[in-house]
Amino acid sequence: MGDEGEVCPPPGEDRMTADELIGQVKFDDRGLVPVVTQDVSDNVVLMVAWANAEAIRNTFTGGHATYWSRSRRSLWVKGETSGHLQDVEEILYDCDVDTLLYRVRQKGVACHTGERTCFYRSAYRGGGKSNE
Amino acid sequence: MGDEGEVCPPPGEDRMTADELIGQVKFDDRGLVPVVTQDVSDNVVLMVAWANAEAIRNTFTGGHATYWSRSRRSLWVKGETSGHLQDVEEILYDCDVDTLLYRVRQKGVACHTGERTCFYRSAYRGGGKSNE
Repeated sequence: MGDEGEVCPPPGEDRMTADELIGQVKFDDRGLVPVVTQDVSDNVVLMVAWANAEAIRNTFTGGHATYWSRSRRSLWVKGETSGHLQDVEEILYDCDVDTLLYRVRQKGVACHTGERTCFYRSAYRGGGKSNE
Repeated sequence: MGDEGEVCPPPGEDRMTADELIGQVKFDDRGLVPVVTQDVSDNVVLMVAWANAEAIRNTFTGGHATYWSRSRRSLWVKGETSGHLQDVEEILYDCDVDTLLYRVRQKGVACHTGERTCFYRSAYRGGGKSNE
């Protein structure tokens, strides 16, 4: 921590420093960007949260998924208290660079309810509607 | 379309009407909720966009993923012009009901760049950092 340990990526390689990514991200007017967090083992979507520049930097340097807690107004290393850390294997960014995707190895569960994923409830099931 | 065709879900079943879901969703101060869209075939995250109540209702009734375009300020049936429709198989909502997950069968590609997913660029690859 503190020593970022990043080197400039060779041309053509999909590797950036935290500051290079932060320089490209289109943060909203609160300085935040939405982050989708996905389990690398089976691509299940675990949660969606928000990051600011500091959270992105901390994720790069520490390797653990870090967010900005809007309710607590503080940096939030997911699992720092519960032990349910998320080891980040990859960070992707979308075509217009206003959303991030953390691909992680989840220790324990992602949701504060004890469920594996925050998306554990279904509101709609389609099927037979695809030709409408 | 127009005839919603929804019935009240039997107790314990994870099925809602559009209005039941809309009544629970915590929309932001613009009346929007973020939507993560995931391919049911392999759980790849295709895109993140925004929905308002009308977009949710249209997704339920039409079966095609519908969003709210912030730039065009209009309802956006994904693929209506390009043919790259998203047939929605399931809509999930997260623990605090401020994010939706559309699970879809994507026709063609999701990204306007021609890539399959909007998350086609990687900024960071971890590994060996999990014990830091």
